[in-house]
Amino acid sequence: MELNVYLAGQIHDDWRENVKNKAMAKELPVRFFEPMTNHDRSDNIGEEILGEQPNAVFKDEAASAFNNLRTNVLMQKADIVLALFGDQYKQWNAAMDVGAATALNKPLILVRPESLHHPAKEMAKQAQVVVEDLDQAIEALAYIFQKN
Amino acid sequence: MELNVYLAGQIHDDWRENVKNKAMAKELPVRFFEPMTNHDRSDNIGEEILGEQPNAVFKDEAASAFNNLRTNVLMQKADIVLALFGDQYKQWNAAMDVGAATALNKPLILVRPESLHHPAKEMAKQAQVVVEDLDQAIEALAYIFQKN
Amino acid sequence: MELNVYLAGQIHDDWRENVKNKAMAKELPVRFFEPMTNHDRSDNIGEEILGEQPNAVFKDEAASAFNNLRTNVLMQKADIVLALFGDQYKQWNAAMDVGAATALNKPLILVRPESLHHPAKEMAKQAQVVVEDLDQAIEALAYIFQKN
Amino acid sequence: MELNVYLAGQIHDDWRENVKNKAMAKELPVRFFEPMTNHDRSDNIGEEILGEQPNAVFKDEAASAFNNLRTNVLMQKADIVLALFGDQYKQWNAAMDVGAATALNKPLILVRPESLHHPAKEMAKQAQVVVEDLDQAIEALAYIFQKN
Amino acid sequence: MELNVYLAGQIHDDWRENVKNKAMAKELPVRFFEPMTNHDRSDNIGEEILGEQPNAVFKDEAASAFNNLRTNVLMQKADIVLALFGDQYKQWNAAMDVGAATALNKPLILVRPESLHHPAKEMAKQAQVVVEDLDQAIEALAYIFQKN
Amino acid sequence: MELNVYLAGQIHDDWRENVKNKAMAKELPVRFFEPMTNHDRSDNIGEEILGEQPNAVFKDEAASAFNNLRTNVLMQKADIVLALFGDQYKQWNAAMDVGAATALNKPLILVRPESLHHPAKEMAKQAQVVVEDLDQAIEALAYIFQKN
Amino acid sequence: MELNVYLAGQIHDDWRENVKNKAMAKELPVRFFEPMTNHDRSDNIGEEILGEQPNAVFKDEAASAFNNLRTNVLMQKADIVLALFGDQYKQWNAAMDVGAATALNKPLILVRPESLHHPAKEMAKQAQVVVEDLDQAIEALAYIFQKN
Amino acid sequence: MELNVYLAGQIHDDWRENVKNKAMAKELPVRFFEPMTNHDRSDNIGEEILGEQPNAVFKDEAASAFNNLRTNVLMQKADIVLALFGDQYKQWNAAMDVGAATALNKPLILVRPESLHHPAKEMAKQAQVVVEDLDQAIEALAYIFQKN
Repeated sequence: MELNVYLAGQIHDDWRENVKNKAMAKELPVRFFEPMTNHDRSDNIGEEILGEQPNAVFKDEAASAFNNLRTNVLMQKADIVLALFGDQYKQWNAAMDVGAATALNKPLILVRPESLHHPAKEMAKQAQVVVEDLDQAIEALAYIFQKN
Repeated sequence: MELNVYLAGQIHDDWRENVKNKAMAKELPVRFFEPMTNHDRSDNIGEEILGEQPNAVFKDEAASAFNNLRTNVLMQKADIVLALFGDQYKQWNAAMDVGAATALNKPLILVRPESLHHPAKEMAKQAQVVVEDLDQAIEALAYIFQKN
Repeated sequence: MELNVYLAGQIHDDWRENVKNKAMAKELPVRFFEPMTNHDRSDNIGEEILGEQPNAVFKDEAASAFNNLRTNVLMQKADIVLALFGDQYKQWNAAMDVGAATALNKPLILVRPESLHHPAKEMAKQAQVVVEDLDQAIEALAYIFQKN
Repeated sequence: MELNVYLAGQIHDDWRENVKNKAMAKELPVRFFEPMTNHDRSDNIGEEILGEQPNAVFKDEAASAFNNLRTNVLMQKADIVLALFGDQYKQWNAAMDVGAATALNKPLILVRPESLHHPAKEMAKQAQVVVEDLDQAIEALAYIFQKN
Repeated sequence: MELNVYLAGQIHDDWRENVKNKAMAKELPVRFFEPMTNHDRSDNIGEEILGEQPNAVFKDEAASAFNNLRTNVLMQKADIVLALFGDQYKQWNAAMDVGAATALNKPLILVRPESLHHPAKEMAKQAQVVVEDLDQAIEALAYIFQKN
Repeated sequence: MELNVYLAGQIHDDWRENVKNKAMAKELPVRFFEPMTNHDRSDNIGEEILGEQPNAVFKDEAASAFNNLRTNVLMQKADIVLALFGDQYKQWNAAMDVGAATALNKPLILVRPESLHHPAKEMAKQAQVVVEDLDQAIEALAYIFQKN
Repeated sequence: MELNVYLAGQIHDDWRENVKNKAMAKELPVRFFEPMTNHDRSDNIGEEILGEQPNAVFKDEAASAFNNLRTNVLMQKADIVLALFGDQYKQWNAAMDVGAATALNKPLILVRPESLHHPAKEMAKQAQVVVEDLDQAIEALAYIFQKN
Repeated sequence: MELNVYLAGQIHDDWRENVKNKAMAKELPVRFFEPMTNHDRSDNIGEEILGEQPNAVFKDEAASAFNNLRTNVLMQKADIVLALFGDQYKQWNAAMDVGAATALNKPLILVRPESLHHPAKEMAKQAQVVVEDLDQAIEALAYIFQKN
């Protein structure tokens, strides 16, 4: 059995590569899906496909259409959602993904540093599992496959 | 026909009273639901019911259980979700409610100032309607009932 | 028992008043819902609430957001969808409502003149009932309540 | 990961071959489904299987049964629906497919020339993505698979 | 609390009146729904509304459209389905209603004389409760409301 | 793409082998599922596994448990249900399968001789397609895969 | 707004009256549903309605049919499930209700003494809220309605 | 066709190996999923991943998060749930899995010794099939695949 895991969270650093490397090191039968992680590409994809928009608001609206198409398709394919929160950026998309995942009954692994326990408390309580770093998240994934 | 509307968003000021007053002034047949808006009560409800917890993390976990119970019950009763975003606070709960509402096919009215168009762009694209202030949101609600 | 009926179809004449009068004459316990039937209002509602838009495409996009909000809320409240097709206008919204109604398992009464049997044939086959005029549609509604 | 895409829209020209060729040129891992695109066959399939029908209305009813069987089976297998609208034909089937796709939470790519923005505005607002031609639609599909 | 009960089964005698009288005698807070029980009306409703059809097959097809519309609307309103089987008639509609009820998670009370235990065995095993006569069925309904 | 087809109907003759041979002759990419077609085995499976039961009613109840387990598992795996009705036997299981299939949104091909049009009329109207013999049913399946 | 609450748990003492009295004292707008709490009646209902059964196993099977009918109907009407666990009895029905409630997305309040934390730990983690006694459970219900 | 079977029940002995060996001996095309069956590991997994917890209650809460994540993922992948009950241990998790399986429409095979017929009676009535030992359970699985 192979599981699909959607990696929700900010796209400003390469934390997803970190996750993939750790999973590969443990030889977990897991396939990862993710949003467009090239930040500029993610912001410009609307104008790239549709051409110049009247102003920055419409540019953003155009980009988010393509980003949401991608997220919706991939989230529906996912067996598990792994969402990372940190102390930078607003991370509203990640929080929105948390809400969608729990409403869709997708099992959810929430990763947040202990320092964020207060603002993340309601999200945490919706998650199947809350951990503090990516190593723990990988151990949670591994536990699903372990024999004993 | 009477509609139930859940008011998602921060609980640090009295914007919900504002919404209710505007709706009442227009005599809209709408019933509003909301999270616990007494911020201290919302933070302390876990220890208030369950007694003292080992530390701040567990205190938060306890509180969020009761807050989520309330939100889950009320969101399931809602015909429409109205979510407000501003430039203060993390507002992850509101973003999580946006994700849950769209996954549950609850029509969503998103209110955000134009200045937040960039971080809110993916949430905006999931919403049925995006407006910039509460007056516009009330007009959107009113439009559902208007004859012509 | 009272049933909610959503009246899908063009908004260029007053056929809905016709339906309501016929239902009232038969004293059917039916509550009708409908899109905004003031055509100008329906086209302008976006700019009316959000202010002027950059061009006609964006004006339409803004208007359709509020129109869809209304349709989504009311269709979810409906027990039956009654969709009228005629030989004028594109009527894509009505056809979209037919698709949504059948996917949501909403029983559907399709009204189309016999002359339109060819282009409407796949929609017709999705409907519970196909009739040729509004009198027949009202008889179909009445049949649900008749004792014998 | 391979995605299934249902191609909704008129069956009077070979636009679907165009889509397939563009997707193949980009080596997208996509499998396309479509209605019967031989127009005569689509119109005659009822009598072909069931024998002669009493008149043209019943001939159409018979044909649409087999066409809907095909569409229902294939739409349920689809991960994405791509719907094309042009300025010819009524295209009620495509609009019905748009309604069904959104009610079934199938991500939807809507393709319509800018000239049709007004009649297609409510359908457009239901779509994840609206583009103006097939090249843009293919770019939207490709974006789902792109790494960065 | 008032419950809606759909009475599925043959329409050749007045067994439903029997059920209603027994329920009224026990003052059960139950509202009964049923198909058109005037057999001639049920067979003719298609031609009555749509006019004469080409032959008996098409007359039946027309009638069943209106009968199914009625059943679909009322079954969706039901909290419980009570299905009666006897040793006369084919009763395929009742068996179809049994299948639909269990697939829709509607609790089902199956009434069949012991003599029919063999042909009804798979239907019986899908039902929540199997009884042999209408008195027992009423006792089953009553048990839902009894305090102790 | 390969489709799963569940063959519902009586188990007193070998009509299913007939279907499979016709499908194989046309090289349709279809996998067939079916109930236990050894009639004695189907009647005795309860006592075979659980041991002797108190009487014939309980013997039947035991058998139907295993038969329903099989049907439920296989029907959930099916993309299409093909249900055959003839003029012998009660065929309540087939009618129940018709109801379950339509409630589960499984596309349904109904096969019945024209002579049965009256008792099968409501089932027929729920089906995507109604045909009169197995050759026509196979043509309906083939149409799903045909290119043009 | 009035909420329906299903009270799951053992039926050997009058803890449900306790809950109702506490709720009434706080004037909570709550309607309680419950299984048959007369233990003898619950065990005998099968033979009471259907007559004597062959042995104790079949007597139990008959009784559980009517008990499950009641539970299924009432659980579907519930907005919240409150499940009590104690250190006596097997309480498998209560645990089964916990599983059904969470699978049906019914918000769940779990009441168990701290001494049972180990065997109830997986059930506890599925619940929205875990409390140790009925007073706390009532406070959780009250919190849903409190203004501030 | 290969079926996925989730093995619910206590984790204090090696009954699952017994099931797997019997299935392998019959060459059934079945893939088994199961909870963590190393009892100590299952109890300690929370602290193993998250570190020491404040007390035994919180240690259990942490462990159950990871156990539930595993169960939720695997149960969603299952086509059939096989649940074993014996006369030792509380087995609340197994009963909870029974409730979840039936609410999710997962076909359920319940295994319980006859001696437990009374406390297991409501669970038994929810199951598709009730048997008394694992050999019978394997025969039930085999029956799904048998040709005749």
